[in-house]
Amino acid sequence: MWTYRAPVADMLHLMTQVLDAPASWSTLPAFDGLDAATAHQVLEQAGRFAAEVLAPLNAPGDVAGCHWTPTAVSTPAGFPAAYAAFVAGGWPGLACASEAGGQGLPQLLNVALQEMVTASNHGFGMYPGILHGAYEVIKAHAVPALRERYLAPVATGTWLATMNLSEPHAGSDLGLVRTKAEPLGAVANGVPVRVTGQKVFISGGDHDLTDNIVHLVLCRLPDSPPGTKGLSLALVPKWLPDGRRNAVHCDGVEKKMGIKASATCQMRFDQAEGWLIGEPHRGLAAMFLMMNSARLLTAVQGVGHLEAATQNALAYTAERQQMRASRRPPGATASPADPIAWHPAMRRLLWTLQARTDGLRVLAYQIALWLDESEQHPDADHRRSRSELVSVLTPVAKAFSTDLGHRSADEALQAWGGYGFVHDFGIEQTVRDSRIAMIYEGTNEIQAIDLVQRKILDDGGLRADALRAELGAEVDACRCDDALKPFADALAAQLEAWSQVQQALIDGAPQDPEWPLRVADDLLQGIGHALLAWAWARIARRTRQVDGAVGGRSEQQWLAAARHGIDWLLPQAQVHWARVARRDAALPFVTGV
Amino acid sequence: MWTYRAPVADMLHLMTQVLDAPASWSTLPAFDGLDAATAHQVLEQAGRFAAEVLAPLNAPGDVAGCHWTPTAVSTPAGFPAAYAAFVAGGWPGLACASEAGGQGLPQLLNVALQEMVTASNHGFGMYPGILHGAYEVIKAHAVPALRERYLAPVATGTWLATMNLSEPHAGSDLGLVRTKAEPLGAVANGVPVRVTGQKVFISGGDHDLTDNIVHLVLCRLPDSPPGTKGLSLALVPKWLPDGRRNAVHCDGVEKKMGIKASATCQMRFDQAEGWLIGEPHRGLAAMFLMMNSARLLTAVQGVGHLEAATQNALAYTAERQQMRASRRPPGATASPADPIAWHPAMRRLLWTLQARTDGLRVLAYQIALWLDESEQHPDADHRRSRSELVSVLTPVAKAFSTDLGHRSADEALQAWGGYGFVHDFGIEQTVRDSRIAMIYEGTNEIQAIDLVQRKILDDGGLRADALRAELGAEVDACRCDDALKPFADALAAQLEAWSQVQQALIDGAPQDPEWPLRVADDLLQGIGHALLAWAWARIARRTRQVDGAVGGRSEQQWLAAARHGIDWLLPQAQVHWARVARRDAALPFVTGV
Repeated sequence: MWTYRAPVADMLHLMTQVLDAPASWSTLPAFDGLDAATAHQVLEQAGRFAAEVLAPLNAPGDVAGCHWTPTAVSTPAGFPAAYAAFVAGGWPGLACASEAGGQGLPQLLNVALQEMVTASNHGFGMYPGILHGAYEVIKAHAVPALRERYLAPVATGTWLATMNLSEPHAGSDLGLVRTKAEPLGAVANGVPVRVTGQKVFISGGDHDLTDNIVHLVLCRLPDSPPGTKGLSLALVPKWLPDGRRNAVHCDGVEKKMGIKASATCQMRFDQAEGWLIGEPHRGLAAMFLMMNSARLLTAVQGVGHLEAATQNALAYTAERQQMRASRRPPGATASPADPIAWHPAMRRLLWTLQARTDGLRVLAYQIALWLDESEQHPDADHRRSRSELVSVLTPVAKAFSTDLGHRSADEALQAWGGYGFVHDFGIEQTVRDSRIAMIYEGTNEIQAIDLVQRKILDDGGLRADALRAELGAEVDACRCDDALKPFADALAAQLEAWSQVQQALIDGAPQDPEWPLRVADDLLQGIGHALLAWAWARIARRTRQVDGAVGGRSEQQWLAAARHGIDWLLPQAQVHWARVARRDAALPFVTGV
Repeated sequence: MWTYRAPVADMLHLMTQVLDAPASWSTLPAFDGLDAATAHQVLEQAGRFAAEVLAPLNAPGDVAGCHWTPTAVSTPAGFPAAYAAFVAGGWPGLACASEAGGQGLPQLLNVALQEMVTASNHGFGMYPGILHGAYEVIKAHAVPALRERYLAPVATGTWLATMNLSEPHAGSDLGLVRTKAEPLGAVANGVPVRVTGQKVFISGGDHDLTDNIVHLVLCRLPDSPPGTKGLSLALVPKWLPDGRRNAVHCDGVEKKMGIKASATCQMRFDQAEGWLIGEPHRGLAAMFLMMNSARLLTAVQGVGHLEAATQNALAYTAERQQMRASRRPPGATASPADPIAWHPAMRRLLWTLQARTDGLRVLAYQIALWLDESEQHPDADHRRSRSELVSVLTPVAKAFSTDLGHRSADEALQAWGGYGFVHDFGIEQTVRDSRIAMIYEGTNEIQAIDLVQRKILDDGGLRADALRAELGAEVDACRCDDALKPFADALAAQLEAWSQVQQALIDGAPQDPEWPLRVADDLLQGIGHALLAWAWARIARRTRQVDGAVGGRSEQQWLAAARHGIDWLLPQAQVHWARVARRDAALPFVTGV
């Protein structure tokens, strides 16, 4: 009943016609010769893989879950073969350099791939999900001998990788990490270490998909400073180069609300052998190198869940018939009951889902485009300015997209009535699976703090101002077309509200340093809505300008979804802006009143 | 880790001091002699049962689920014994008449019991959940011979009952019901019938808790009119009076997202023997008799989930330590990390949970008080006016409370970070279990349509006006105390907004009959917020007036929660009122653009 079909034509329209990706690629030597036709091919193949290989394993993987014994973890039936096919297709290394065995394609295409993988099988997607980040860390920080041994297997997905950060008492607060690394020699990048400690919530900590697993472990060298400034990073393989099994144990697999096909492991390192990767005490900085792309990939998981919910809700409501609609499409024939898609409450739901999917997808693509430019553009100033935009956008996209991904799936479930609550119809799995993305890669509350403190207050709002200037260009562009006036007005109003509350926060924070933290979540939601307003305006304008095909839908359908966003969804922003502005609203301690 | 403790002191404070329940009881002969002390005793005992018997079975019941074979359904281990104890304690018949073997107590106390049962074990609560409604239907509609045989066993819970409404193709649209009833004799109330058909989503359709099960089945007599006007109701027992097993079969139990301990059955009636109950073709009306109390009990399930989420989030955030807080309570000692309850994002969450719990609980209690008066007051005019208030309030309370119950549990999960996603910590079960209440007893979208069409437009807003007048009295009362000005202002603003959009709808509906349906959900949400504003004002005013104990919290804590509602939560209402007012916002058919 639950199905997934990759919206390739829509994705390509947004990438190439709405966001002009080929124009960006033509400025980046690394992507020389890449064009819309090649992108189309890649998306088609990825879409086929997701629909034909991954989607059929989604519900069975949820039911089967992972099986743990003290010495091995097995994934659901079909997963090892699917992963082998994923590697054979070259998908893990899509955006890795060709020197390392990757395909050297833009992050933008990797983002589209990630959406398809999540939408078709989030549990499966967890195994290779961290690979690109691990590749970046090894590439940037490992000494040559380690890089030689581990970079290509990770880039190609021949060996899977993990990020070992959290410990039972250290989740959002990694400064509390206790895992020890004892150096065997002078402390320096690449020194052999013995790692001892416990880690929790390690996705793919053990499994039966690859011959080896490369663990990146946040740990503490002896006599290191307390807190995050004393954290180092070690590379600890499951199997050592000489063929011995390393002292890395999986002590259990969590029983979870969702993504049950993903083995979330409790790991124990017991004098495990490894090597320092990156400078001593700079482990967190090394991890943060990959933070922007990892958080962007998490944001895209929200888009994937939205897409899955949207296309399944469209199909189900077109088919399910209950009651006569108060208004019916022209030419509807008489029948005792109409498709529920005709009922106003369902029309609101369906357009809401479509508008959010379109808007958040465009946002993710724009960030990916700028991320690619920040990494590949020949001009250093351009790279830096793009990187600054990405740094402001990333926490918003991560929190806002995963929040809406989950909430939208939960709202969509209502379309199925009682059937929505039943496993067989699939939407309840989407609701459960999507919940985790609001938590991992930094909880959405942590993203909001990152946004307000490190991305806005820290530089007096300069980077945010630059971002608003970029977005504001869309207002001017829309002013040239009377039909786009509602979009121009809506976006202009959002940017103005953002500007005002941002300035108020900057002015008021010195007197009341806690104010920005009290309203951080609302600031993020407000900016998220402003970004959606920009995305809807952009979609509307460019779709109107295109002659010929505009993806898998008509021009009118693209515009109706975007307009629905402006009319029905954007008013929500006002609540968030108003709450940010209310510095006087009390927020006492719960036990202190 | 997940625990439940019934908030008896808070419940009693809200009932007796905030809402003056004893004053209401003193006007109702049926509750002669009932006072706060007796209510306290009942609540204490119910709370002990929920905490000691039901809560420990909650997580195990979720894991075990129900076991189906072609001939029997078994509930999770411990459930039969717990149910026997529930019956022995007299809990099923709490609000049933003493003549039928019940305890003759008010619906208000039954509402409090239902909250405790849901909060401690929603799955268990499903089995007796429908009992009171079945009791009311049998009492009001069965012929004396049937009443004689079935009323007392149902009132006391000796035999459990079911409501067989939905069929695979007939959920929200019961007019499509096909199950047949062939009469054996002249068609009249009480005539023996043979029932044939399939029913789905039948809670407790089969189980091992009671010796017999009394099914109330919506069905069609031969030659009945199409649609809902041709529906009749039959009573069909699992075991017939002469000891034969009736042809009622459970063909399967659904695998569901939540309430897994509740057996949600696919039922097949195969020339099953039964009797008509109520007038022919008046089956739906007979069922609707119990609708107000059934929907109120569903609303209260939302409160139960909110309470469970609130108390567990308070406990966990007080204990879990991550990072130093930017501001710390006076006297806090130095430590590397503070309780997360001190961090602003968690303070917002915790006060939000508490404010919603308090507000929705007061709302449910007020409806229950008026429901009791509508049934028991000696004066017919008073009964009618109370019944009218209840009829407007019921769809709002059902949809608004279950929506917030689920959404709040989902928001609360965030406090646990990664642990929230893991079974062992319990909150994810609350999220899953709470989802169903938005669907059953009429989906929340159906409630919104009921509100706008049948409760507001149908009488030109007269009943809604009467309700607003009742609520407006609180504005005046709050004006007498300067400290309550924010509450008076907030409530007055909500009532004014409600009045305006209601009038606009009434005036505009003749020209645009679909408008009320397009904005029905927002109207319900707006009114829900207005009711919360009333509840918070009421709590604040009465709590300030009381000398002495005010439940399990300090006066300051009650006021802080209520004030949090006004400051942080009520602004959301503005979005809903604004959307209702926007008659011009387009909402096309998804395939028609």
